[in-house]
Amino acid sequence: MTTDARLADLVADLPEGVVVTGPAEIEKYREDFARDGSAGAPIAVVRAETAEQVQRAVRWAAAHGVPVVPRGAGTGLSGGSSAVDGGITISLDRMRAIEIDPASQVAIVEPGALNAEVKRAAAEHGLWYPPDPSSYEICSIGGNLATNAGGLCCVKYGVTTDYVLGMDVVLADGTLVRLGGKQIKDVAGFALLKLFVGSEGTLGIITRTTLRLIPAQRAGATLVSSFPDMTAASRAVVAIRATVRASMLELMDNTSINAVEDWRSHGLDRSTGALLIAQSDAPGASCAAEVDVMRACCEAAGAVEIFTTTDAEESAMFIAGRRNAFHALEQRGSVLFEDVGVPVPLLPDLIDGVAAIAARSGVEIAVVAHAGDGNTHPIIVHDAADPDSVARAHQAFDEVMALAIGLGGTITGEHGVGRAKRSALPDQLGADVIALSWRIKDALDPDGLLNPGAVLQPRPGT
Amino acid sequence: MTTDARLADLVADLPEGVVVTGPAEIEKYREDFARDGSAGAPIAVVRAETAEQVQRAVRWAAAHGVPVVPRGAGTGLSGGSSAVDGGITISLDRMRAIEIDPASQVAIVEPGALNAEVKRAAAEHGLWYPPDPSSYEICSIGGNLATNAGGLCCVKYGVTTDYVLGMDVVLADGTLVRLGGKQIKDVAGFALLKLFVGSEGTLGIITRTTLRLIPAQRAGATLVSSFPDMTAASRAVVAIRATVRASMLELMDNTSINAVEDWRSHGLDRSTGALLIAQSDAPGASCAAEVDVMRACCEAAGAVEIFTTTDAEESAMFIAGRRNAFHALEQRGSVLFEDVGVPVPLLPDLIDGVAAIAARSGVEIAVVAHAGDGNTHPIIVHDAADPDSVARAHQAFDEVMALAIGLGGTITGEHGVGRAKRSALPDQLGADVIALSWRIKDALDPDGLLNPGAVLQPRPGT
Repeated sequence: MTTDARLADLVADLPEGVVVTGPAEIEKYREDFARDGSAGAPIAVVRAETAEQVQRAVRWAAAHGVPVVPRGAGTGLSGGSSAVDGGITISLDRMRAIEIDPASQVAIVEPGALNAEVKRAAAEHGLWYPPDPSSYEICSIGGNLATNAGGLCCVKYGVTTDYVLGMDVVLADGTLVRLGGKQIKDVAGFALLKLFVGSEGTLGIITRTTLRLIPAQRAGATLVSSFPDMTAASRAVVAIRATVRASMLELMDNTSINAVEDWRSHGLDRSTGALLIAQSDAPGASCAAEVDVMRACCEAAGAVEIFTTTDAEESAMFIAGRRNAFHALEQRGSVLFEDVGVPVPLLPDLIDGVAAIAARSGVEIAVVAHAGDGNTHPIIVHDAADPDSVARAHQAFDEVMALAIGLGGTITGEHGVGRAKRSALPDQLGADVIALSWRIKDALDPDGLLNPGAVLQPRPGT
Repeated sequence: MTTDARLADLVADLPEGVVVTGPAEIEKYREDFARDGSAGAPIAVVRAETAEQVQRAVRWAAAHGVPVVPRGAGTGLSGGSSAVDGGITISLDRMRAIEIDPASQVAIVEPGALNAEVKRAAAEHGLWYPPDPSSYEICSIGGNLATNAGGLCCVKYGVTTDYVLGMDVVLADGTLVRLGGKQIKDVAGFALLKLFVGSEGTLGIITRTTLRLIPAQRAGATLVSSFPDMTAASRAVVAIRATVRASMLELMDNTSINAVEDWRSHGLDRSTGALLIAQSDAPGASCAAEVDVMRACCEAAGAVEIFTTTDAEESAMFIAGRRNAFHALEQRGSVLFEDVGVPVPLLPDLIDGVAAIAARSGVEIAVVAHAGDGNTHPIIVHDAADPDSVARAHQAFDEVMALAIGLGGTITGEHGVGRAKRSALPDQLGADVIALSWRIKDALDPDGLLNPGAVLQPRPGT
């Protein structure tokens, strides 16, 4: 059967408009925000409206041996939803229903719903869905589950997997399985639900999830402290984390600050070497007490200036600056996004090591960080039109990952491996864990059709 | 090769005293606390001192097709570490090293270390390992990981899996893999670590784990409220949980109270229909505010008497009463331990349903509950010497699980499936999820030698 004839079967099997085959339309679904050059030429995009349509598309793909790339909002930063040659992309962007069950304190959410939409729906019932990637206004819950996304408040409130109670997953053969539910604790059988979280669409396609909600976060206080450099700031982070449970502990370096200010003024001081943005949401007088501890830690680490506020708008301005760093840095050139993490006490070593790599490679590396978790985002800015700049940027990209691995850390704390980092994964995990991962992959996707090339490098000969 | 000859190889391969073959010694490792009659006759117990010895034993077992049952402290309540006929039990009770890294806020722990030992070691550094099964003084960390154990404080602080950052696992072929580490966030590759947690020794044997610690818990306040019956008390729980994040929300029914008082006086009122024990560890004035909310919820639900205290010793007495319920009920006869959970708002339905089953079956069912998580422990007391009583007890046991499943809940919230509940697992998960579970099991343990018969029912013909 020709590609066209096979595709005609798929088009006929699904409602009008679900299967998109026009080149201009397909192009919109080809890359994610990593723009890492890994995207191939897909034959169609399936804009599914229901889980049943996802099943039909997957069954069709299984029957014809066609690769399937699941895709949420396309805001991923590691090429995890890059389209593949001759494959189909199943976009979940039309499946965005959100139902809140306030009595059970859960949200039942389709994967295309945006993180911010879930937060808003929960807030209407005085409830809160904590995980908050910087991109929360534009990223989808499905993508959050695919990468086990983190964010700013995870330093106190944990990451996506900590909030997933249930899910529906379409497996590689089109079977839909239902895992977990509204119960808080459940150890009946293997932790399959946890296995699908963070599997980046390589083991199944999540078509619905039940998320745990908690009572709304209390208003808190924000401390903003400037430091002469990132090393001093990261020492303050280590000291703070050893003493209080901050609800936010973020860092920006001088390059990030200036990029943000260039893009849009957030009132940040361009001369600052490093900026720490910390919050406490402890109740009552404890909040001020925690802020006092943070202040003392900052002073001991060599803070230049410390500002505190309980005004929500004022603190939102600083946090927006931090959240906008990725976007602002993209205005300066092409970027490679790192997501390396280390045990928290080694944060200063990681920061120093990244600076050394930047100096050695002659590329600009800006750093923002979910510092309280030891998770940093070195962002490598380069000139895509200059092959030498590109080569040096990729060299630096690999060296930063090797640095993190050498410090006992990880190549990715929250963005996922995708295609951009898969070559470094064996260095972190070792051959035995890679072999174990393939056993899982082969068991769940024996024909290797689900998001091939993401997470695990294709095996020789395939 | 005869069994004796094979065993001689194993004995020769390990240091003196590691392989135990005397019948009286073996007997001590045959059953867990479920005493569910599932234990077979093993040929030896390997009391491993190192991960390398575990690897040797597993390699020997793989070479000879001998089943392997891993075992911690043997305090499991579902027959998960019952010995199997012709197999070996690998006991981890000698591997109990604990190392605290206060800067990284982690504990590196061997599986035989008791939960309480980890808590104490952490406390020496002002740190806290939250998960606290009722049996925390006698249960091992390895067993906690095997079942993803919960406890009293998980209503606010989560369960075991939420604290596992790293582990060493010996796979079915004897390979040791190292997963995770001291980094807080890590999404590099599949969530294999989470898959091993709760797998009850059927996928691998955990020989070391890195556990996340948090700053020590604040001293709090305790509220103890009596109710005419469990239904009223469970309504109070639902109301409290909708409003505040209590750090403990436990229930005891009249039967449990009297069993505890019969065994040893804890100062509980024997006439009480149901007792709610709640705690707040919110800081400062918020603690009193949370207790006020709890009090109002109890009053609205029909509380008979409400007592509050900030005295640690006074509250410890009530909590000890709750923790000792299992042991006290065992003094009244043979017991079957349930561990069913439902979405929290359905707690009153579960409570009522259990009472109806008790009435219908003519067996005594005491109920204690981690009520704030919707997780209850109906404990079926019967006379093991009376076949009719035994039959009615088992009938009730199955009916309680069916009740929980019917309410959209789970047959086990924290004890694991083991062998005692495996026949009900397909009713909860459905055939497709069972098939998916077998794919994982077959991928990791192709010869089916790791804890065979636990979690998943043996397939026909095996």
